[in-house]
Amino acid sequence: MALNLDLIGRKGRPITYEYTWKDCVLYALGAGAKHPQELDYLFEGRGPKILPTFSVVPAFPALMDVFVKLGADLRHILHGEQELTQHRSFPAGGKVVTTAEVRAIYDKGKSAVVEVLARTTDTDGEPLADNVFTLFVRGAGGFGGDRGPQAPAVTIPGERAPDFRTSQTTTTEQGALYRLSGDLNPLHISPSMADKAGFDRPILHGLCTFAIAARAVLAHLCDGDPTRLGALSARFAGVVFPGDTLTVAGWRTGDDTCTLQVTRDDGTPVLTNAVATVQPNL
Amino acid sequence: MALNLDLIGRKGRPITYEYTWKDCVLYALGAGAKHPQELDYLFEGRGPKILPTFSVVPAFPALMDVFVKLGADLRHILHGEQELTQHRSFPAGGKVVTTAEVRAIYDKGKSAVVEVLARTTDTDGEPLADNVFTLFVRGAGGFGGDRGPQAPAVTIPGERAPDFRTSQTTTTEQGALYRLSGDLNPLHISPSMADKAGFDRPILHGLCTFAIAARAVLAHLCDGDPTRLGALSARFAGVVFPGDTLTVAGWRTGDDTCTLQVTRDDGTPVLTNAVATVQPNL
Repeated sequence: MALNLDLIGRKGRPITYEYTWKDCVLYALGAGAKHPQELDYLFEGRGPKILPTFSVVPAFPALMDVFVKLGADLRHILHGEQELTQHRSFPAGGKVVTTAEVRAIYDKGKSAVVEVLARTTDTDGEPLADNVFTLFVRGAGGFGGDRGPQAPAVTIPGERAPDFRTSQTTTTEQGALYRLSGDLNPLHISPSMADKAGFDRPILHGLCTFAIAARAVLAHLCDGDPTRLGALSARFAGVVFPGDTLTVAGWRTGDDTCTLQVTRDDGTPVLTNAVATVQPNL
Repeated sequence: MALNLDLIGRKGRPITYEYTWKDCVLYALGAGAKHPQELDYLFEGRGPKILPTFSVVPAFPALMDVFVKLGADLRHILHGEQELTQHRSFPAGGKVVTTAEVRAIYDKGKSAVVEVLARTTDTDGEPLADNVFTLFVRGAGGFGGDRGPQAPAVTIPGERAPDFRTSQTTTTEQGALYRLSGDLNPLHISPSMADKAGFDRPILHGLCTFAIAARAVLAHLCDGDPTRLGALSARFAGVVFPGDTLTVAGWRTGDDTCTLQVTRDDGTPVLTNAVATVQPNL
């Protein structure tokens, strides 16, 4: 399966996403937001406030549009990394526009790695959020391309205890709920698709784990104020199954930066190379 | 607050409800359906199958339309009883039409009790489900009307152990999730509204508890086949808070009938006078 390398550096068509507060609340519930602690994200009477990671929802159709044009077999995609930059909080409903661009396609041998930058703005073109999705396309490598740069490893300051550590048990329905926000990949619900991909049972969306990490940062470093999360990046290092308990640990590395790690019950890291940038509390 | 008694016996306008499989899955998750045991209700690759109690979702806007015409203050409504008759399973998406009719308004002194029959059909007029909603309207009694018949108490065959007993712990987000299917009464999410109504915190929708009872009947008496639930009726006898553990016990009283009771952790009954009619397994 060869990808259409001509698309590198080219932008897809702008894709409009229209939503209401219900979509924001549905996303928050899929992302594991808790009642009553995170009522701000669950109740329209509080806005609702919008989780910064909600920005992947309007970006997703634009990402898929690009992947279809690339000729990628969607069944062979695995999420590698995610990098979110929040410019402004999303309104609690309305229309936003996302334009996705293939930033690079690297040749890792058997797999290709595709980097897509999806920029989401309001209808006036004012930036809301940028998301870089890095995806593995199994079987699409070997085209003689560049292997790409080795991302510098983010070192956990293991010599000291984390500044915060918090655990959350996902529900066995977490994937079924999360997918209603748009990523309908059957890998997250179909036993037979999971089996074909080599998993015992359907796996949780990487971006759900990413959102759980973001919620921990909001709670522990931002006083629950979603506007204070500037950026979050992470590598999807391990598989999470719905029902797993995830532990998010954070080490502050500066006034506005924090290194994170998310592990499963058995200590297996599932999010690594993770860094959050937050606005200090002025 | 006087209700418009002229509406007794009159039908509201037919109200069309358009939906997709996502609405059915969202409802099932709100009703506490579990993954993977109830995957049939959560995965479009399995239909999805539709919970019989989903029929209250398209009926709800028709019910509200009638209540607004009655002049009822929606903040003063409490759900008293529910009676569901399923004629056919709902399709996993499409358009259905509900016509609601005020069957009776009784005068209980301080409160009025309003009985609304909502009949939902497909667009050809073929019956899908009938729902009788019995609601208390606080402060709307004292108009000199009939008190109404005393419903015969359904006796639990207490001398013998139930034929099944099953428990489910609701999540603290259950109400926040359930309400996305249409009943946005802030009593189920707003701390201040709950306080005004005399509750410590937001309470769970009675129809969510009703759906949990129906799921127990499907699992224990219908081999998980939703078409085999013919009817379910119950009285909302006690308050449920999101996070409570509910125990559903069922006593078979005939080939096709079963008396049910739902209790909270502390044994308080929350659904009483409950009877299910099921199709025997032929």
